[in-house]
Amino acid sequence: MVTAAFELFAERGYEETTIDDIVRLAGVGRRSFFRYFPTKEKVIFPDHEQALADMVDYLNEGEHDPDPVGRACGAARMVMRMYAANVHYSVKRYALTRKVPALKAYELSVVWRYERALADYLIRRFANLPDGGARASVIAAGVVAAHNHGMRAWLRSGGRGEVAASVEPALDLVHRTWSEPEESVVLITRRGIPMWQIVQRIETELREGPA
Amino acid sequence: MVTAAFELFAERGYEETTIDDIVRLAGVGRRSFFRYFPTKEKVIFPDHEQALADMVDYLNEGEHDPDPVGRACGAARMVMRMYAANVHYSVKRYALTRKVPALKAYELSVVWRYERALADYLIRRFANLPDGGARASVIAAGVVAAHNHGMRAWLRSGGRGEVAASVEPALDLVHRTWSEPEESVVLITRRGIPMWQIVQRIETELREGPA
Repeated sequence: MVTAAFELFAERGYEETTIDDIVRLAGVGRRSFFRYFPTKEKVIFPDHEQALADMVDYLNEGEHDPDPVGRACGAARMVMRMYAANVHYSVKRYALTRKVPALKAYELSVVWRYERALADYLIRRFANLPDGGARASVIAAGVVAAHNHGMRAWLRSGGRGEVAASVEPALDLVHRTWSEPEESVVLITRRGIPMWQIVQRIETELREGPA
Repeated sequence: MVTAAFELFAERGYEETTIDDIVRLAGVGRRSFFRYFPTKEKVIFPDHEQALADMVDYLNEGEHDPDPVGRACGAARMVMRMYAANVHYSVKRYALTRKVPALKAYELSVVWRYERALADYLIRRFANLPDGGARASVIAAGVVAAHNHGMRAWLRSGGRGEVAASVEPALDLVHRTWSEPEESVVLITRRGIPMWQIVQRIETELREGPA
């Protein structure tokens, strides 16, 4: 059915193709079409419901991950792998989505749900920060934008090469930028001071923290 | 017409209200409705086409702004002020948009166009950076997410207080995080060195830049 749908959308256009056209070409009944695809747009998109459920599971298992931003990037990689698992359809779908407003609207609604799933996770992880809510929303949007930026570049190339080579540098930019740097202690001292005094000063510094 | 539309959407529901219902209650003709509002969703949203055009003008005028991320935040403030200019409708629209998938879809498509306008500007400004494209996409998404985060909080409160008090801290987080810090020079020296030697070393350092 998926092959038939892509074929017809390319030939006649998305809006002009009916579900009857698709089932006729695929040689299946209307009822089995609707069992798999509740709406016409779903026939050409991968299984976003499953991907969203998998992503939420993965995030829930990471409630104690010491690197929440890294976890959010990991969740985005799940979507990346889903697109990479079928290069041919992903490239065709990208071309079609750019032309058909209904498909673009569907895609935007899915992207928004991924973004909310990431933001919900980060809001929980940043619950102790005064700006945790804003930070979570902004980082979730950044992870999604980074993924989509890399993905678009790869799809525009016709899916040549590894998708990761395109997506990872963008995810890394977000990860680096939003990971709290470890707090550093700068200790300035003279040569010749006995080690026990240096150790004592470092201990005091670490215990008391920044002013 | 806008008042009539909000009234009917609240009473009967969005999907159940027809354009005929709206023009009848407002006492105008169908033709004047369509002159102002090409589609039903547009009757309750502010003039996004105008806002987008204004935003693009503002960004184009900032091709040499020394602070491109700040400029993008300024562009987001234009949307903020549009919502704040009519608190009553903005709060009603927010409640309605959360309930009606067609309105949510329309809103997502508009938000996406704002995000693209910001990204297009930042791509031009970051043309000389190796990761300029990814950086532009991520920052544009961050600015939009920050604006929307603050805006949602304000709308959920029923539009009480200043919208800026809710939006500005989130925009500031994005601005601070993505502004290139000025490169710093750390000069370590002994007391008692003559000033001309210090000046000479600083000059050398500034001219040669980091190793």
